[in-house]
Amino acid sequence: MADQQARTSGDKRPTEIPAIRWEEPPEGPVLVLLDQTRLPAEEVELVCTDASALVEAIRSLAVRGAPLLGIAGAYGVALAAARGFDVPEAARTLEGARPTAVNLSVGVRRAESAHQAALARTGDPTAAAVAALAAARALHQEDAEASGRMAAHGLTLLDELLPAGGHRILTHCNTGSLVSGGEGTAFAVALAAHRAGRLRRLWVDETRPLLQGARLTAYEAARSGMPYTLLTDNAAGSLFAAGEVDAVLIGADRIAADGSVANKVGSYPLAVLARYHHVPFIVVAPVTTIDPDTPDGASIEVEQRPGFEVTEVVAPQVAGTGAAGGIPVAPLGTQAYNPAFDVTPPELVTAIVTEEGAVSPVTTESLAGLCARSRHTPDPA
Amino acid sequence: MADQQARTSGDKRPTEIPAIRWEEPPEGPVLVLLDQTRLPAEEVELVCTDASALVEAIRSLAVRGAPLLGIAGAYGVALAAARGFDVPEAARTLEGARPTAVNLSVGVRRAESAHQAALARTGDPTAAAVAALAAARALHQEDAEASGRMAAHGLTLLDELLPAGGHRILTHCNTGSLVSGGEGTAFAVALAAHRAGRLRRLWVDETRPLLQGARLTAYEAARSGMPYTLLTDNAAGSLFAAGEVDAVLIGADRIAADGSVANKVGSYPLAVLARYHHVPFIVVAPVTTIDPDTPDGASIEVEQRPGFEVTEVVAPQVAGTGAAGGIPVAPLGTQAYNPAFDVTPPELVTAIVTEEGAVSPVTTESLAGLCARSRHTPDPA
Repeated sequence: MADQQARTSGDKRPTEIPAIRWEEPPEGPVLVLLDQTRLPAEEVELVCTDASALVEAIRSLAVRGAPLLGIAGAYGVALAAARGFDVPEAARTLEGARPTAVNLSVGVRRAESAHQAALARTGDPTAAAVAALAAARALHQEDAEASGRMAAHGLTLLDELLPAGGHRILTHCNTGSLVSGGEGTAFAVALAAHRAGRLRRLWVDETRPLLQGARLTAYEAARSGMPYTLLTDNAAGSLFAAGEVDAVLIGADRIAADGSVANKVGSYPLAVLARYHHVPFIVVAPVTTIDPDTPDGASIEVEQRPGFEVTEVVAPQVAGTGAAGGIPVAPLGTQAYNPAFDVTPPELVTAIVTEEGAVSPVTTESLAGLCARSRHTPDPA
Repeated sequence: MADQQARTSGDKRPTEIPAIRWEEPPEGPVLVLLDQTRLPAEEVELVCTDASALVEAIRSLAVRGAPLLGIAGAYGVALAAARGFDVPEAARTLEGARPTAVNLSVGVRRAESAHQAALARTGDPTAAAVAALAAARALHQEDAEASGRMAAHGLTLLDELLPAGGHRILTHCNTGSLVSGGEGTAFAVALAAHRAGRLRRLWVDETRPLLQGARLTAYEAARSGMPYTLLTDNAAGSLFAAGEVDAVLIGADRIAADGSVANKVGSYPLAVLARYHHVPFIVVAPVTTIDPDTPDGASIEVEQRPGFEVTEVVAPQVAGTGAAGGIPVAPLGTQAYNPAFDVTPPELVTAIVTEEGAVSPVTTESLAGLCARSRHTPDPA
């Protein structure tokens, strides 16, 4: 990555390292990312000086997670503006970096609109760059606040659904402070339950192929002192069968207008298992994840990722011998099917929790109502 | 492993290396195993000179798979007898090496019974050792034959269930010639479909945590020239949802009298997915896998394996830094839930295919009928 520089943090603890931050050193503004591909082995920051470095960081999953992608996209536009690059061109490249998370596109467009409006109003590129940055900062701040409200609404819902308390929650992928301006989405709800003394166990799916559960969620759970147990994605079925799961909590990368939920691959099998075992399946995501322009699940474009993520195991601290630098686990030439996401139809979703409240049952109408009452904060000019 | 010696095969191809074989070099009889933990990176044979070395090989999964464990157990008793060790003691140790696969215990007891009978009849330990070896060889040979018959019955069933042909079969774990005296169980059926020109695609679940699908099934499929695609276990849901799976074929480690099937963890979630999508879920196993002494699924003891199989990724050719020699992927101190098997209730099993034919629906009565008509080959004295 030509325009990224890596910084290794010495003894800093990750809870002190935000997943993303804007800095303005004398040599010009930069976007600093915690490189999530290196966790938990190493805490390394990537310093992006232009949008194309950020695009590469997004594609390599150094920065990931739906809400954070939106924030990163907005800052990326601000960075292009501040450094005098072509803003619409940077915006289109950023939007196309990953196709499934709608938040990325929403974040990019918000900063771009602010930039355009200021440029039209003032004719001054510097003022327009300031406006783009203000829009990115506003999104970042709103996301942090939304996180807190999702956690509160989610905990209320859990307590209603599971009045006995002592919640045993199964989660998939990573949805904590690493994906958010705040404490995240699904993970934030589990953390709120923990703080309220009502979390008995957080079951953490390892989440193949990239092991975000093992690497990142276990990391965040350990840091927060939560009672957690890691399992292969395969072993979730045994937990359901043994009656050890009270609720499933996951995030979302895009929610269609009909309530179909695109999320990390492996979410849909959990939804089917949850239904079979009469366990609530709860999706936690900010309102921006709901995309009224995507009518249904079939309309969601699911990103297909390279096969080497399956045929090789990539570990941060190991230089492997595989074509992609990982450790080959399958015979040479093995073809792999590697969708990054799957789509859960609304009839399998017990509730969608947003910062504006929860909807249940999930229908086109209930979602539209939620979106209508969602507040629209005007961006600072 | 003090009593095991490793031999690396030069340019031998694995189809020429049997998973297990008995040898009688001048220094005394030995049991030679293909070390399955090193595949596909390396083809290494383990030479066991006593039962305790074999127990270690079984526990470390160097030798694995229900039918092969039975054969290995029988040869282990023969080895103890031939080398003058205490046969009942060796038999108990072997039986206890892994708890879930009933075949292991069946194989051990068969060779032990032959040994006891010959000893009682002749009073001659050498004759008794010969009888134990003959029993092991007979089991080995029968398993090879059973494999061929399972494949034929399985293919007939597939053709009945899926008259359109062009089968797209999803399989889990490894059930081919590496687990059998012949071509295996579920894999043998897929191979028969391939040879008959009716296999469109073999979908291979990677099968975490030990990646038997990626390492072993992909290996066997590639060697056999089958059209196969690897996927994370997580991604199976997307295939079902897309209508890309015509049938699921798996093996079994123990089948209770009521038809509950213990098999590699991850089988049960596939059964639930198959039911939700109206896809046949077919179990292929020799009759010896049916255990009339285990009344139901709840009575099946499921082996819990060490957490490091989940918290570290073990790759044959990499010396990792983890406590268990693997590459740590989760934070230090992470607790893992790691059942080796799960149990699928009979109501989710479309059919059980054995060398004696298929039963469908799967009930206590239909299974008892199958066992009754199973032929009982007397062991050579």
